Amino acid sequence: MRLTPTPSDKFTFGLWTVGNRGRDPFGEFVRPPLDPVRAVRRLAELGAYGVNFHDNDLVPIDATADERDRIVRDFRQALDATGMTVPMATTNLFTDPVFKDGAFTSHDADVRAYALHKTMRAMDLGVELGAKTYVFWGGREGAEVDAAKDPIEAIKRFRDAINFLCKYARDQKYALRFALEAKPNEPRGDIYFATTASYLAFIPTLDDPDMVGVNPEVAHEQMAGLNVYHVVAQAIEAGKLFHIDLNDQKPGRFDQDLRFASESIKPLFFLVKLLEDSGYDGPRHFDAHAYRTEDEQGVWDFACGCMRTYLILKEKAQQFRAHAGIQALLSEIREGGEGGEAPYSSQRARELKARNFDRQALASRRLPYERLDQMVVDLLLGV
Amino acid sequence: MRLTPTPSDKFTFGLWTVGNRGRDPFGEFVRPPLDPVRAVRRLAELGAYGVNFHDNDLVPIDATADERDRIVRDFRQALDATGMTVPMATTNLFTDPVFKDGAFTSHDADVRAYALHKTMRAMDLGVELGAKTYVFWGGREGAEVDAAKDPIEAIKRFRDAINFLCKYARDQKYALRFALEAKPNEPRGDIYFATTASYLAFIPTLDDPDMVGVNPEVAHEQMAGLNVYHVVAQAIEAGKLFHIDLNDQKPGRFDQDLRFASESIKPLFFLVKLLEDSGYDGPRHFDAHAYRTEDEQGVWDFACGCMRTYLILKEKAQQFRAHAGIQALLSEIREGGEGGEAPYSSQRARELKARNFDRQALASRRLPYERLDQMVVDLLLGV
Amino acid sequence: MRLTPTPSDKFTFGLWTVGNRGRDPFGEFVRPPLDPVRAVRRLAELGAYGVNFHDNDLVPIDATADERDRIVRDFRQALDATGMTVPMATTNLFTDPVFKDGAFTSHDADVRAYALHKTMRAMDLGVELGAKTYVFWGGREGAEVDAAKDPIEAIKRFRDAINFLCKYARDQKYALRFALEAKPNEPRGDIYFATTASYLAFIPTLDDPDMVGVNPEVAHEQMAGLNVYHVVAQAIEAGKLFHIDLNDQKPGRFDQDLRFASESIKPLFFLVKLLEDSGYDGPRHFDAHAYRTEDEQGVWDFACGCMRTYLILKEKAQQFRAHAGIQALLSEIREGGEGGEAPYSSQRARELKARNFDRQALASRRLPYERLDQMVVDLLLGV
Amino acid sequence: MRLTPTPSDKFTFGLWTVGNRGRDPFGEFVRPPLDPVRAVRRLAELGAYGVNFHDNDLVPIDATADERDRIVRDFRQALDATGMTVPMATTNLFTDPVFKDGAFTSHDADVRAYALHKTMRAMDLGVELGAKTYVFWGGREGAEVDAAKDPIEAIKRFRDAINFLCKYARDQKYALRFALEAKPNEPRGDIYFATTASYLAFIPTLDDPDMVGVNPEVAHEQMAGLNVYHVVAQAIEAGKLFHIDLNDQKPGRFDQDLRFASESIKPLFFLVKLLEDSGYDGPRHFDAHAYRTEDEQGVWDFACGCMRTYLILKEKAQQFRAHAGIQALLSEIREGGEGGEAPYSSQRARELKARNFDRQALASRRLPYERLDQMVVDLLLGV
Repeated sequence: MRLTPTPSDKFTFGLWTVGNRGRDPFGEFVRPPLDPVRAVRRLAELGAYGVNFHDNDLVPIDATADERDRIVRDFRQALDATGMTVPMATTNLFTDPVFKDGAFTSHDADVRAYALHKTMRAMDLGVELGAKTYVFWGGREGAEVDAAKDPIEAIKRFRDAINFLCKYARDQKYALRFALEAKPNEPRGDIYFATTASYLAFIPTLDDPDMVGVNPEVAHEQMAGLNVYHVVAQAIEAGKLFHIDLNDQKPGRFDQDLRFASESIKPLFFLVKLLEDSGYDGPRHFDAHAYRTEDEQGVWDFACGCMRTYLILKEKAQQFRAHAGIQALLSEIREGGEGGEAPYSSQRARELKARNFDRQALASRRLPYERLDQMVVDLLLGV
Repeated sequence: MRLTPTPSDKFTFGLWTVGNRGRDPFGEFVRPPLDPVRAVRRLAELGAYGVNFHDNDLVPIDATADERDRIVRDFRQALDATGMTVPMATTNLFTDPVFKDGAFTSHDADVRAYALHKTMRAMDLGVELGAKTYVFWGGREGAEVDAAKDPIEAIKRFRDAINFLCKYARDQKYALRFALEAKPNEPRGDIYFATTASYLAFIPTLDDPDMVGVNPEVAHEQMAGLNVYHVVAQAIEAGKLFHIDLNDQKPGRFDQDLRFASESIKPLFFLVKLLEDSGYDGPRHFDAHAYRTEDEQGVWDFACGCMRTYLILKEKAQQFRAHAGIQALLSEIREGGEGGEAPYSSQRARELKARNFDRQALASRRLPYERLDQMVVDLLLGV
Repeated sequence: MRLTPTPSDKFTFGLWTVGNRGRDPFGEFVRPPLDPVRAVRRLAELGAYGVNFHDNDLVPIDATADERDRIVRDFRQALDATGMTVPMATTNLFTDPVFKDGAFTSHDADVRAYALHKTMRAMDLGVELGAKTYVFWGGREGAEVDAAKDPIEAIKRFRDAINFLCKYARDQKYALRFALEAKPNEPRGDIYFATTASYLAFIPTLDDPDMVGVNPEVAHEQMAGLNVYHVVAQAIEAGKLFHIDLNDQKPGRFDQDLRFASESIKPLFFLVKLLEDSGYDGPRHFDAHAYRTEDEQGVWDFACGCMRTYLILKEKAQQFRAHAGIQALLSEIREGGEGGEAPYSSQRARELKARNFDRQALASRRLPYERLDQMVVDLLLGV
Repeated sequence: MRLTPTPSDKFTFGLWTVGNRGRDPFGEFVRPPLDPVRAVRRLAELGAYGVNFHDNDLVPIDATADERDRIVRDFRQALDATGMTVPMATTNLFTDPVFKDGAFTSHDADVRAYALHKTMRAMDLGVELGAKTYVFWGGREGAEVDAAKDPIEAIKRFRDAINFLCKYARDQKYALRFALEAKPNEPRGDIYFATTASYLAFIPTLDDPDMVGVNPEVAHEQMAGLNVYHVVAQAIEAGKLFHIDLNDQKPGRFDQDLRFASESIKPLFFLVKLLEDSGYDGPRHFDAHAYRTEDEQGVWDFACGCMRTYLILKEKAQQFRAHAGIQALLSEIREGGEGGEAPYSSQRARELKARNFDRQALASRRLPYERLDQMVVDLLLGV
């Protein structure tokens, strides 16, 4: 079993993930700032493929043009020196108080304009450093007070913004695809487009739907208790899995951003298997962070752990495919299910309506799912 | 305040709702069967507009053709005598053991065929009695064992079935629209198409997307902790709110189907306001049931309560629109937000990118949401 | 209906609540610091009874002795000038990185010693300013990694600390009672003593159990989806409701600390009714904060709203008691239930075992709960 | 690794678990009744230690005395023939409509009397067949309508009942211990004593607290999102773990009663480790059932799977104790933490208050929890 990551595994981390300083609603920073250049070098040493960022992860919001240029130059040198890539970039539209009531969906036309301004500049920065995917997480696009904001208007405003920015990317000849990332709540009481499916429903209403897909995040779907394997499957079936955020989360609580598969071993085995089976060839991006109890060494332990567990689960997916007992059971279970539905015709409808069915016989068919599931548990536990 | 319902309010109930006999996972029936004819008569007396049914709510699954005809005749007479309508019908694809592992998404081609057979016959029955909307709730389309079923294949099978049935409806010249109803779990560990948004994403991939919309259910979205007001807003914005199931639910637990707005007073006030403001003119369908502690009289108390609270909240929505203090605050909050985004042009992009923004000034804009929300609480509490 | 608060209502706020500056996991401060003296003055003007604090809400953790004395003197003058009280104080054992893996339950004996040191000094401060109740919220006493810490050892360490501090209070002749406050998670993955009931179970194992009770917080119980009315009832029945934190929360998500009863109108009506009916005469403490979208004016709107809604619900509790229809139904429902159980005797056991029961007759007794609950909804909605 | 269960493992199943017929709120029975005698024989063959029951799992509620005697005789013969034991028994106080609004907490004194009658007779039956533990799960002791019932009165009524029944057991010279089992909701909207901790708090208030402990159920705690490992640890620390119900559950949804550790691999590893480390020597009772998709063969697959995974996790707990890397990290982590707190003295308090602490130095101590947790994941995955 190969457990040492290489760039061909396409593992990526956000600057904000390894750079997370451990502040939380009840506590202050526990780790010093991490220089992006150092992040690039250490991640390269650990076998990562690339690094992603929000504009302000790299360039402070109040940096001068000179500062920006110096930062970008140093960062690019680190990328060049290490062979690391920047497959994805995104905009921070949530930290600054200006976005306290939303960015693209703010009531304030000036705030909306500023959000476009900031995003175009961040797109320029991302593309300059090689980004091919641009993520939108609307963390402040939501409400605590439903009297104050119209959720229909919010959708329209968000659509206007995405349409505008698609056109900007086309206009600039940027080879960018957009990936929309959902979350049900936190920091807002309720965030608009609460689930990946909300964005899958939204995309066909855009002016340029082919350019836009989704960036499901494990933790965000699990916060709502949803089965993330099913969620990603729908995105893949729709041809819209443009990026993915891997981490972990216990359902029904605050956003934990735990080390990948450190909690949800079985569900995330199926997710890894799905990604590998589906031909998804984009980055495996870890949007997680080390426990607040860690120092910097612990951050690298965390990063290694994310990649290691992915590789273990990938290997187990291979074992699943090669497991005679599992495959025999699957054949038995799927027997009789093959063949697409016959297309509709009046005659087929007539025949189907007239056909006699023996419900008891159909209901008595054996479905040995306990046995199958136990084989999966055995496989996961390495028995 | 008018609190007595009339048919023009378009309140409807399922036969299975007032006919619910109070069985649950830990207890037996507590109420005797309710004759559908009696249900129609009592609901008419109480001011309802119509009654909806699953095929087997009206006609037992093993009824002979003669029994079916007699039942339908008696039922129609009750409708005619009372003026009650049947705006919606649906298929029971979950009670019989034949559906234990799904209907349209079963591995077994014969089960899938039987599900089509049963649905076509149920559509015939529904249309015969006047149904204009046909609901699909795939309660058994899901999994406990993700090894056993492929969620991508499940989507494809579900699509095949809906495409087939759309064509059947067209072929039969049925003036039917389909409404898809989501639920995250129960009775399955995880149900495919877990949220209304999953179906909104699915519909554009159908052969005949205009014919298909959604039937959001309050409780089902709230089981996942989602904001049902936001969910329904997205459906309305997409032009896809074809029907709605009103009830109530505490988040993060079993499907409760509580009396409308008996728990979630504030969220459901906004939902009623949205329905009334949006021009939605379909049925206000209550998919709920009386507590298991009730006898038949309690069932009618329950039905009256659903309608009464809807009317109260509708009246409060009117008060909200007429409330000088609320409207003044809303004007203040929305000031500066009017006007759509300017359409994209290279020049506008250039100008926006070059524009200077005073973030501190923008961030300091007052947003008196506590005050507004308290006014809403006062209004709801009748102060 | 009297909606203007007076000190006799015993409404209190934490300095950290009105002083909350709106930082969250994704955003920076939006409000400037609020001087504790100003907080006291404004709250007094609004009709509050008192103000509570963590040691470092008032005195910064690195303050010199002189700074401490000056701050305390100014604060006391504000209290004296306004008549405001300090009924409760508590220790901040969570913000500083030293507590990143716990305070009383830390593996590090020095951290545990520092936690005792800090708490004793904070108790001195609290008592100096008049506190009669001392709250313990062990926000960092928990784990993300269950391999790292022994939950049994954690209980023992927490017990040692509370026993030690009880003795310190006795030794100092402090007229203090301790109130333990539970929370299921956040900031830790799981916090030890996850619910109020965990502390109710823990208290009888202390050396001085009479001195220790609980401080249930609405939001913390609701995070776990528990019925806070039932939780507080158990605390009252046990004689252990020493303090209470009032706020609001949607279940199954991050700790929201919303304005009292801004979401959970019906559950918190029952809570207010319980407090008023039970003879609880302690502070009604609001442990909540204004939305991050507010400026300082919004903070006072928030504070007014908490008190106003409490008073409205208190008035409605009075209406409930005086409502002829509700009381008639309650009499009907409770009929036959009066009279305690006969005490055990061998003869009574024999007779009971031999008695014949008509289950059908007993089961058919009418329980008009839908009707009763609708009357409550009507009462809440002011109809 | 020994994966074949033997009676010395003390694995037990309820008759209602292997006898579960697969009915759910939306579907009918899928499996025929399972004869208790057959259940005993098959479980014995599979290596179980014993079988537990509710009175009516064995003897139908309307059985005549002769029928009862015949059933008990046949059942005892099966026990004798197989060497199977009955370590635990309990009362069904939830299925019959008579209990629709509670048993021991019903408003109706006759229902409360009937609940005592039924429980005493069920205790006689349990003891006759060898039960040493008697479980109380108050599935109907709760409310949907908080106006209708007083939760304080409910606690008192429940206490009266348990006190009465303790005295009955003493009077009969039954060597029984009682174990109270909590659940937050389902079938009731909210069940009184929602968590195991609620019962731990209740027990010290009984007349005979030594006789009464708890029966935590994994699924019930996880329904509320609680950490079941922490919950059971508190019960053990209190000396009150008298029995345990092992199964599995995804948080925040209906009661799933899944095969042990089929979902929550890591949390239940820690639970198994705790049980084994703590010296708990009672039954490992599986309160779960096969998926509704299974036939009888699947029921035995399910039973085997529960025991097999327990044995795997038990073996992994042994590996954990023997794992050099894990133990070295634990030593490092625990260093400096040894030694109980010094007992209180005035002098120690003075010294502690005066001591200087270097917060920065204490905060900088390394806590390599990511590394440790990854070792646990590796161990679980068999890498």
